[in-house]
Amino acid sequence: MFTLRPNVVNAMERLSPNIDAMRDDLKADLLEVGRLLVSMAEAVRTAMRNATDALLAADREACEGVIARDQEINEMHRQVDERVYETLARQAPVATDLRLVITGIQIAADLERMGDLAEHVAKTALRRYPALAVPPELREVITSMAAVADRIAGKVGLVLTTQNETLAAELESDDDAMDELQRQLFRILLGKDWPYGAEAAIDGALLGRWYERFADHAVNAGNQVVYLVTGESA
Amino acid sequence: MFTLRPNVVNAMERLSPNIDAMRDDLKADLLEVGRLLVSMAEAVRTAMRNATDALLAADREACEGVIARDQEINEMHRQVDERVYETLARQAPVATDLRLVITGIQIAADLERMGDLAEHVAKTALRRYPALAVPPELREVITSMAAVADRIAGKVGLVLTTQNETLAAELESDDDAMDELQRQLFRILLGKDWPYGAEAAIDGALLGRWYERFADHAVNAGNQVVYLVTGESA
Repeated sequence: MFTLRPNVVNAMERLSPNIDAMRDDLKADLLEVGRLLVSMAEAVRTAMRNATDALLAADREACEGVIARDQEINEMHRQVDERVYETLARQAPVATDLRLVITGIQIAADLERMGDLAEHVAKTALRRYPALAVPPELREVITSMAAVADRIAGKVGLVLTTQNETLAAELESDDDAMDELQRQLFRILLGKDWPYGAEAAIDGALLGRWYERFADHAVNAGNQVVYLVTGESA
Repeated sequence: MFTLRPNVVNAMERLSPNIDAMRDDLKADLLEVGRLLVSMAEAVRTAMRNATDALLAADREACEGVIARDQEINEMHRQVDERVYETLARQAPVATDLRLVITGIQIAADLERMGDLAEHVAKTALRRYPALAVPPELREVITSMAAVADRIAGKVGLVLTTQNETLAAELESDDDAMDELQRQLFRILLGKDWPYGAEAAIDGALLGRWYERFADHAVNAGNQVVYLVTGESA
């Protein structure tokens, strides 16, 4: 179920400044939690990407695929939590190590929520099927929001594997770009020449909301990783 | 900053089936975490109640008050997290006790998010000030959603202090009531005779979303408490 890139396998070793002093068995458990988180980050990124494609093409099967696969993401979430509690029980880590292990639970919660938001996009598309939920006037801004969401989700995966603080700092400015797109979306929806009435306006506003929240949770997850590495809130 | 009802002080003693066997110092720390969570639950309930009143009256000062006081809720969140990490560091709890302490972090995260949603309601009201953001056609359904949200938030406070599983089970049916109200709201927004255009429709849809998410997070928090007490997911 989890396909791993080779570089991921050792990447989590850098997750804590104290990892060199860490006992090998704790290190192995942390590596496993890290692997699961990277897989989850990849899965939610793919989910949102597929949801956007399905939305823009009004592709029913693709929508249903996104919705069905959210169960797999939820299952991954359960596995992270289980693995964290096993680690806590087996290794009884303290201080920084303990905080590190627990943060895995919080990152997983953000990632799971990102999966839910991809599912929301697919469900919005499905509700309007066979019509397109995104009218031509919104296509560009929604496509841009999806691109920013995808870029942020990709960076979270990278931050998880590299613990690169510079990359993590970029998440904030990516999030600003999302907020600007959100404003642009509302300018179109609320413009005097909006021709589609209330239903399409509501769908447009909610779609914007799903992408924006997806990005918010990704930034949260990225900040948690930075906190892990530096001990300071981003 | 935290005003406590007298019955709260001892209530957290029942939070774990093992609490009688628990060391006194761990018990004292857990009591403190529990006190902070109950205060947070009261604060977010009050926040949403004030936000609803401000929304329905288009009361600018009241809106600004809700927004300003969200900082206090965020500060309470920070205090819970800090207290949990202190407890973990000082007491090094294991097994059920450990899970219990960590769940405090997750409940606090749900409660903080509920505070954010009250702030969203106040901000929506403020954006339309001095006009009313809720037109007469939506007043009844929004008032009902706010009432359900308030009932659920009140129950979470009670579940935290009593660990009453029956009460926690009621949260699910309260949440069903919220979903039904959400459908009713959309029927009005999407009805052929909706006279207000896109902006009011978007505000109505988003307001419904804030109340619904507030309830979802409350149910989550309640379920976490049940999980604490029974060791089984609700």
